[in-house]
Amino acid sequence: MTVVYNQIANRSLERIGALSDGLFAIAMTLIVLEIQVPQLPHGSTDEALATALVGLGPRFVTYLLSFLTLGIFWNGQQTQLSYIDRANRDLAWLELVFLAIIALFPFTTSLLAENIDVRLALGLYWLNIFVSGLILYAIWTYAERARLLRDRTGPEVGAAIRRRIGLAQLLYFVGLVIGIVVGTYPAIAWIVLVQLNFAIAPRIWRLHKI
Amino acid sequence: MTVVYNQIANRSLERIGALSDGLFAIAMTLIVLEIQVPQLPHGSTDEALATALVGLGPRFVTYLLSFLTLGIFWNGQQTQLSYIDRANRDLAWLELVFLAIIALFPFTTSLLAENIDVRLALGLYWLNIFVSGLILYAIWTYAERARLLRDRTGPEVGAAIRRRIGLAQLLYFVGLVIGIVVGTYPAIAWIVLVQLNFAIAPRIWRLHKI
Amino acid sequence: MTVVYNQIANRSLERIGALSDGLFAIAMTLIVLEIQVPQLPHGSTDEALATALVGLGPRFVTYLLSFLTLGIFWNGQQTQLSYIDRANRDLAWLELVFLAIIALFPFTTSLLAENIDVRLALGLYWLNIFVSGLILYAIWTYAERARLLRDRTGPEVGAAIRRRIGLAQLLYFVGLVIGIVVGTYPAIAWIVLVQLNFAIAPRIWRLHKI
Amino acid sequence: MTVVYNQIANRSLERIGALSDGLFAIAMTLIVLEIQVPQLPHGSTDEALATALVGLGPRFVTYLLSFLTLGIFWNGQQTQLSYIDRANRDLAWLELVFLAIIALFPFTTSLLAENIDVRLALGLYWLNIFVSGLILYAIWTYAERARLLRDRTGPEVGAAIRRRIGLAQLLYFVGLVIGIVVGTYPAIAWIVLVQLNFAIAPRIWRLHKI
Repeated sequence: MTVVYNQIANRSLERIGALSDGLFAIAMTLIVLEIQVPQLPHGSTDEALATALVGLGPRFVTYLLSFLTLGIFWNGQQTQLSYIDRANRDLAWLELVFLAIIALFPFTTSLLAENIDVRLALGLYWLNIFVSGLILYAIWTYAERARLLRDRTGPEVGAAIRRRIGLAQLLYFVGLVIGIVVGTYPAIAWIVLVQLNFAIAPRIWRLHKI
Repeated sequence: MTVVYNQIANRSLERIGALSDGLFAIAMTLIVLEIQVPQLPHGSTDEALATALVGLGPRFVTYLLSFLTLGIFWNGQQTQLSYIDRANRDLAWLELVFLAIIALFPFTTSLLAENIDVRLALGLYWLNIFVSGLILYAIWTYAERARLLRDRTGPEVGAAIRRRIGLAQLLYFVGLVIGIVVGTYPAIAWIVLVQLNFAIAPRIWRLHKI
Repeated sequence: MTVVYNQIANRSLERIGALSDGLFAIAMTLIVLEIQVPQLPHGSTDEALATALVGLGPRFVTYLLSFLTLGIFWNGQQTQLSYIDRANRDLAWLELVFLAIIALFPFTTSLLAENIDVRLALGLYWLNIFVSGLILYAIWTYAERARLLRDRTGPEVGAAIRRRIGLAQLLYFVGLVIGIVVGTYPAIAWIVLVQLNFAIAPRIWRLHKI
Repeated sequence: MTVVYNQIANRSLERIGALSDGLFAIAMTLIVLEIQVPQLPHGSTDEALATALVGLGPRFVTYLLSFLTLGIFWNGQQTQLSYIDRANRDLAWLELVFLAIIALFPFTTSLLAENIDVRLALGLYWLNIFVSGLILYAIWTYAERARLLRDRTGPEVGAAIRRRIGLAQLLYFVGLVIGIVVGTYPAIAWIVLVQLNFAIAPRIWRLHKI
């Protein structure tokens, strides 16, 4: 009997998770590594160092932004994987495409930090978020169709995941529009607020019910 | 039945542990990567290289300091996780905030190494330690309240964890005061000694009984 | 009774997998890190940034190329490991040699990106792919001979793995020939197409039946 | 009842393994990252690139050297861990000290590559190997005394581990002596040969029986 290679490839969900955890951990650390440490002449004052650090302000804002972004997508992927029972090669490649897009965040983060008043930099950062969400959506849809989900995963789980991705992408798109119409700073502030809402999920807001 | 997304998110303790191990491993390695290797002209003598290495002294002191710091917090987080039975999305986000603060250590380490006589650099390093401890404290408190602990985890475990964090933070604060009143070098020496005490936990001292 | 050290060493398949996942995750992230972020003067226009990004074109092409390459070899190694029941020290060292070759991809990727019109750069990139495939082949052959495979792993699995490696290497070799005879750009395009074929495995092509 | 914090800390062998795998994977990748990619002017010839790559020769030699070194210590640590049944806080800290020394290899590797004819650079590289071996020895001795080993781990396992560490360190010390008396190149060649012997363990040599 001849076996087709693609039938035997990539059936380990565990190693997909391990690869993802590694890649997310590195991306989270690299966005700090890109912050250049001020090296003042020997005997400098506290004030001189404070001034130099204030100049790094955009870097710290984009660090906060990107840590939240990476945390949200790590959570999103992990939530999906917890409902998936087994992998196949197509799922493995969809996850790899997801990771390839996630691995770009240190680049788009630095691009935004170094050019924080240029709309194109914000647009590319938004694009990175948008494509990440798109692929997460595609992964879930594929997993449903290919019957890779755990037993007893009712359709309401998929509905919740789709609602969440749709809502998040809508709010990020509002951020992009703010960036184009108003400016990059208010757009970044909006996106950070949206992300904090997803991270903190305050009980008093209606949004966390979605 | 409608499912709220936040109810289904982030229930895997294992992947939180894996992400943390990856991030700690990277942070521990990056604090070495930031030590710039001296490149002497071809045919240099041993003496020339020795002189260049001595100039890197502050870098090695801060490497020792930060490896101890990261080891202590890795141990602290791991000890907590070993008593936690299951995760939920709030715990996952608290752990992510903890990791976001830990990921800053390569930056604050370099900042201190490059500006080792500037008190603000020491103050920011202390702040990094302080906030890390604060979040560990918050994680434990949250896990207790949200009843995420393993069965048979008596209140004496939480008491021991709180005592340890409180004592450590008190001793680090003494280090900060030494830094402000006396100078950065004695402050760093004090903090390293405190950390060595926690790492080695000598049997002859009373401190390890706490 | 005297025990020979080599008999007791390296029997954990799990840790080989974990080391591999870590190394692949880092390699995948580093190939982005090497893309230098354009730093334009304050107040630059979208057009200036777009021009700078277009100049990074070769970098993004080689990023796509190398992410596909790393994904293919990660999948290949993982597929093999899923059929291997236990490790021994020889297998561990073969896997380490495989990882040592994989760890070179960030270097050969940058080399190709920085010298994209130089045939030697393409040749070395091809060599990196070729040796990686060769060692994967050697690992499987060794695992078969040393009877490390899981029970019920019939010879048709090995046949499928060998066919796949052989076919892939043949197609990559065609890419090398194109590079020598025609030029580096068409060669890179060919290799990317070959890799996309393996990744996407389109149902309408006969190739995915092999 | 009061619980002493040190009694409840660090009991997970798994997370020690995971942290180690992450740190080794990063160190293995960073020793490549430090190899600077030649950037020739547009339209350079194959010959120009070949010349530039030959100039990187010491870098590739030290890459080979350090990958072997890291592989040997990863194997050594893993072999030990496979006989250890449970951890405690002292073991965790010994492993952290081991990792702190391992994390220095990218630095000592670069130091040697950039100053390959300076004996002090070789001496520090040897010191890194020596201390790594010393701590592995200490870890095993501690684990035996603290009765952390798995049941049925007879004394012959410990004897084999000690013989292997002792022999390896003796051979590395010969390398150091060659470096001082003859020169750095023959010393590096000797150490690489010693390591290849441990990695390949050729059946025809008597050494692999030790």
